[in-house]
Amino acid sequence: MKSGGEAAVAEWQAHFAACAPQVEVRWWDDPAVAPEDVAYVLVWDPEPGRIARFPALRVIFGAGAGVDFITRDPDLPKHVPLMRMATEGAAQRMGEFVCWSVLSLLRGARRIALQQQARDFTYFDGEGLATQTTVGVMGLGHMGAQAATMLRGLGFPVIGWSRTPKAIPGVEGFVGAEARDDFLARSQMLVCLLPSTAETNGILSAPLFAKLPKGAGLVNVGRGAHQKIDDVIAALDSGQLSGAVLDVFETEPLPPESPIWTHPKAIVTPHIASLPTRRERAEHVARAIAAHERGEPLRNLYDHDRGY
Amino acid sequence: MKSGGEAAVAEWQAHFAACAPQVEVRWWDDPAVAPEDVAYVLVWDPEPGRIARFPALRVIFGAGAGVDFITRDPDLPKHVPLMRMATEGAAQRMGEFVCWSVLSLLRGARRIALQQQARDFTYFDGEGLATQTTVGVMGLGHMGAQAATMLRGLGFPVIGWSRTPKAIPGVEGFVGAEARDDFLARSQMLVCLLPSTAETNGILSAPLFAKLPKGAGLVNVGRGAHQKIDDVIAALDSGQLSGAVLDVFETEPLPPESPIWTHPKAIVTPHIASLPTRRERAEHVARAIAAHERGEPLRNLYDHDRGY
Repeated sequence: MKSGGEAAVAEWQAHFAACAPQVEVRWWDDPAVAPEDVAYVLVWDPEPGRIARFPALRVIFGAGAGVDFITRDPDLPKHVPLMRMATEGAAQRMGEFVCWSVLSLLRGARRIALQQQARDFTYFDGEGLATQTTVGVMGLGHMGAQAATMLRGLGFPVIGWSRTPKAIPGVEGFVGAEARDDFLARSQMLVCLLPSTAETNGILSAPLFAKLPKGAGLVNVGRGAHQKIDDVIAALDSGQLSGAVLDVFETEPLPPESPIWTHPKAIVTPHIASLPTRRERAEHVARAIAAHERGEPLRNLYDHDRGY
Repeated sequence: MKSGGEAAVAEWQAHFAACAPQVEVRWWDDPAVAPEDVAYVLVWDPEPGRIARFPALRVIFGAGAGVDFITRDPDLPKHVPLMRMATEGAAQRMGEFVCWSVLSLLRGARRIALQQQARDFTYFDGEGLATQTTVGVMGLGHMGAQAATMLRGLGFPVIGWSRTPKAIPGVEGFVGAEARDDFLARSQMLVCLLPSTAETNGILSAPLFAKLPKGAGLVNVGRGAHQKIDDVIAALDSGQLSGAVLDVFETEPLPPESPIWTHPKAIVTPHIASLPTRRERAEHVARAIAAHERGEPLRNLYDHDRGY
């Protein structure tokens, strides 16, 4: 579970007890539970083969909006419905996180944290005003559109890049591969909210950074596979990027030996950009279980053929 | 100088050289400069008596919007005009900082920084959504009104408290001492943007915190004199406050021995909420010097009788 593993089971139990007392919640290694008695699992990043141990599963609940960490399991039982966590408010929460991230880059939040650690009250200049700083949002789906609109409310000029045209008030759109370089050349802050596909994997790499204005900021709240972390570090070191907020990584949890942890220009966050609270997720799952047991169809199911 | 002391002189000289090459900029202890030749000083927090050493001053430029650190000098030459730093964009910059601060409390930015320091990728729940979190803004002057409007744009319900009625679209107003407790009872995040007066000094103290909802967040971007720092720490420790972002302190720079530096629920920032960049301030002072030498009246002068 991200979910939180065994340590979080008591918290999940308390949340379910409050909203669905009839649902019995157990850690999946609890020796008192027979695998054939388990009807539902709530998982984030299970070890391959773990889910297949339960022969009578009715639904697999992903603990986040993305289920990449579940579907990569070669033994995943594909006949069992896999539901993504698509709570209301996820786009609003993502928008809040993106605004926090971009403002953090603008105002030097990483330097603020390092100075606090060193008990250093030295004044420093941030970047210019939001009104003078163009933010480029890559990916204008539900979350990207919400983030773009909220950034506009802070005064940022906002431009967007998407595969198909999108009309978002106040946001200048760039469409398709041929418009990408023009979009990048204008993006003083770049926010990645792309879906994870074969085309977008590795997109946040040296050739792309070279097309941004010198000293641009980077926010990755898409997928860890989008970024080549060595290229991000090299661009921060050269000054091509002035700062980065990274919420997603190819390997999660991010290993302690990763050099990005201590980089003076990078903020690392533990994949929390749009994840609802555990209480909200418990309520969401409880509602889905109730609907399923009434015989209603489940929403937000993963399609193994489409790959999303 | 905050201003930055002698270490920042080269930077100031470069900024003035770019916008006003005829202005000669020197560190005020430069032995090659005769005190009687100094026409202007740019100061933030001068030692008492220092400004009085210059007998031929035409204007004293404060390096920030507040000039408290200058006017407390008993030897300040009151016949010399004292100009505050009131650049365009200061309210926008303050609004950006307030939004960053409130989002930082909502999303656990202090915990994010501590986890990064510990290379700890553990997921954690933040507070609820902005749309479910009421922010109370104390002080609805130019800056408070701008901050309130920008917070509304992020989806926060916003209420305001002021001495006289203010009409800000979408912001519910509370007026005067008799409405204060009702205002506080609704403020899940409290932002202090009050001016520094005898009435407001020490207002952020235990009796006020007790009137906030349990676990409220605090942002002080007003004056250091507004807060009783021991009360802030006690409220953080008891859980009455869940977090604080403090940009201002009674003694600045904040001494290294202050316990607030290491508090796990407090973010300390070095009085940067609305301070323009040095380049912007140099340009502003250069314009004022040029206007003054053309015989035009100076704006944003401090009034020693009114006290602001």
